[in-house]
Amino acid sequence: MIRFYNGRIMTMAEDCSVTSGEVWTDGDKIAFVGTPSAEQLKAASFEREIDLDGDLLMPSFKNAHTHSAMTFLRSYADDLPLQDWLFTKVFPMEAKLTGEHIYWLTKLAILEYLTTGVTASFDMYFEPDAYVKANIESGFRTVLCGSISGEPSNLDRLEGYMKRFNKMHPLISYRLGFHAEYTASRELLEGMGELARRYKLPVSTHNSETAKEVRECKERYGMTPTELFDSLGIFDYGGTCFHCVHVSDRDLEIFRDRGVYVVTCPGSNSKLASGIAPVTKMLKMGIKLGIGTDGPSSNNCLDIFREMFLTAALQKLAENDAAACPAGEVLRAATVGSAHAMGLFDCDIIAEGKQADLVVVDLMQPNMQPINAIAENIVYSGSKTNVRLTMCAGKVLYERGEFFIGEDAKRIYAKSNEIINSLRD
Amino acid sequence: MIRFYNGRIMTMAEDCSVTSGEVWTDGDKIAFVGTPSAEQLKAASFEREIDLDGDLLMPSFKNAHTHSAMTFLRSYADDLPLQDWLFTKVFPMEAKLTGEHIYWLTKLAILEYLTTGVTASFDMYFEPDAYVKANIESGFRTVLCGSISGEPSNLDRLEGYMKRFNKMHPLISYRLGFHAEYTASRELLEGMGELARRYKLPVSTHNSETAKEVRECKERYGMTPTELFDSLGIFDYGGTCFHCVHVSDRDLEIFRDRGVYVVTCPGSNSKLASGIAPVTKMLKMGIKLGIGTDGPSSNNCLDIFREMFLTAALQKLAENDAAACPAGEVLRAATVGSAHAMGLFDCDIIAEGKQADLVVVDLMQPNMQPINAIAENIVYSGSKTNVRLTMCAGKVLYERGEFFIGEDAKRIYAKSNEIINSLRD
Repeated sequence: MIRFYNGRIMTMAEDCSVTSGEVWTDGDKIAFVGTPSAEQLKAASFEREIDLDGDLLMPSFKNAHTHSAMTFLRSYADDLPLQDWLFTKVFPMEAKLTGEHIYWLTKLAILEYLTTGVTASFDMYFEPDAYVKANIESGFRTVLCGSISGEPSNLDRLEGYMKRFNKMHPLISYRLGFHAEYTASRELLEGMGELARRYKLPVSTHNSETAKEVRECKERYGMTPTELFDSLGIFDYGGTCFHCVHVSDRDLEIFRDRGVYVVTCPGSNSKLASGIAPVTKMLKMGIKLGIGTDGPSSNNCLDIFREMFLTAALQKLAENDAAACPAGEVLRAATVGSAHAMGLFDCDIIAEGKQADLVVVDLMQPNMQPINAIAENIVYSGSKTNVRLTMCAGKVLYERGEFFIGEDAKRIYAKSNEIINSLRD
Repeated sequence: MIRFYNGRIMTMAEDCSVTSGEVWTDGDKIAFVGTPSAEQLKAASFEREIDLDGDLLMPSFKNAHTHSAMTFLRSYADDLPLQDWLFTKVFPMEAKLTGEHIYWLTKLAILEYLTTGVTASFDMYFEPDAYVKANIESGFRTVLCGSISGEPSNLDRLEGYMKRFNKMHPLISYRLGFHAEYTASRELLEGMGELARRYKLPVSTHNSETAKEVRECKERYGMTPTELFDSLGIFDYGGTCFHCVHVSDRDLEIFRDRGVYVVTCPGSNSKLASGIAPVTKMLKMGIKLGIGTDGPSSNNCLDIFREMFLTAALQKLAENDAAACPAGEVLRAATVGSAHAMGLFDCDIIAEGKQADLVVVDLMQPNMQPINAIAENIVYSGSKTNVRLTMCAGKVLYERGEFFIGEDAKRIYAKSNEIINSLRD
């Protein structure tokens, strides 16, 4: 067992309130939360006791939308219009990627997730075997999101992946999903709806990221992407939609009524000039919210602190109201909301029996002082420098700047540079 | 002398290009930049040789608008409308501050500046003696900005401060300035113009931060604040204006023609829902730009990396153009532009004879890998975790998480908590 003591605890079971007490983990689970009796302490056997020294233990962050292996394109093609960026820079480079590349580039992303207190990613990319290998070796949790496009012949592959990856390893799961309306045939979308109903499962997808995407879908089908998906039964068992920048009130009603999660990606949406998602309205309607970074090619980093600040700050700007989108709601979205959006219902809060996916927030840093309000400090002032320790499934993978993922960080950096250099013309 | 070697150098003398070579400092100045001959190396005597190991040495960042001692109100009153925040929360607490408080709260801010690679602040607050003491003791550079308001009787005090603080210490300087149009009488503004012309000096002030401020100024004077200031000769010798969110084309022409610097504060402007400054237009017109955090009560942190990302990202959103406000321009604004906006013309670039105000950016972190483009990496992906070393006037004040400012950080944290607790009702 591992014992965290002498600190502050934010369980997030209810709100963002902070209590004292201890948390013990046993294997991959949380075994105890509270103030132990002398007897309990005497009976317990700890392999490690971590003195929090006043720091905060809280549920780890989850990155509910990303394309991890796109690390190789970080700062490769910035300050370009979206279409140029995607078609002349991103797609030609991606076409050259091999499984071996994906493996190393994913490890690079995992290092960065750990520095920002993230213990799980909801990832949409290709070469899933190489991707999964990198995650398992690192001890990092990931949920693969189906990303098929094109014709319905791809549905068999999706089904196969789902069956295979969901029984592969405790850290790995797979969810039904497709890339986006604009890369799918109508037949594929119909098949997607059938699959959702057959398995009674939620479906995840990119949705309404750009105005162009929505406009063209309306031209094709006379409906928004959300209306189209719903009409085909894709959301009959819920789902998760990434971005949702250009959504109508009717779209939002569908999300609410079908229990569809929205994952907002404010860093990517601002850097690519896609727009500001109506998060305030979503929260008011009771739509469930998660937060994601999107891939490091559009963002360009995987920093959940920056995403949290942006989520709140962009709403204040868009609503012309400094009171919009308060810190507590944002912190909840980045932890509990994101976990639920990716189906990780046992990785959401600090409670006995839950997965030990935890982060220690270093409060003894200038940006966290004085301690007026901890949730507000994290959302409005927090940074990667405040991540003291990141634990996934009961294992410490990052602590005070050091990584424990079974691979030397410098080797991963060297491999990443090697890969991008080999892919350039 | 101190020798930086075996790394990358971004001098910013021209653009953001990166070269190899060495930088030597001697006392508070840069003594050598380039590739030394064997003879030069033999003749040199170094008190310390810093192996950059591939990391980047660049000019330090400057925070061109802040109220440092407002650290005590960090996360004290968030998610409130601007007027409530200012009048019911900030002003009543500020009224209780003593010089002793300012001294400790300033030291807290200095710690945070150092973690983000900032070596100088352009600060507007009160109790200047206590403030200056904290800076000198810490070895930190600061430019005090006059902040008078109300009646012209305060002009004498301003003049006195300017004379006293400008000859006090090499790290300290003082610039003519007043708080804002909306807190000044017309007579004060007229006197300000006279003072500017008498001393032939630039004048700094808050300007057009909110729509309300501009509207009310127009009602009072039939002019925007910028037009009013210019009509009174306040900008006859240039100046620096903070915020400039709600500015007209005519205002921008005045800035350009008078050589007035604009300091943009996107974190504060978004969190307080003030709006997005037309930075793209400013850059196109050739207006000189700096970047500031504003105080930690509105922001809530003093993180120049977040400000840089926001400067670029908000322009892309506002202009609906992912190509707007490219990274190089932003990096320049946060270093050279900010230095010039506060009158620190000898602290801007890496060149022989310039002040040794430098930062080492740690590139061996996941968010900086692979190395596709360094300026873009810093602006779009950088974080405080990338600040390996901060040097001010030739002295290392921060290195790998440790502070060297002659005071224990934990004592400063304890004092800050003591202060805010004593000030609460």
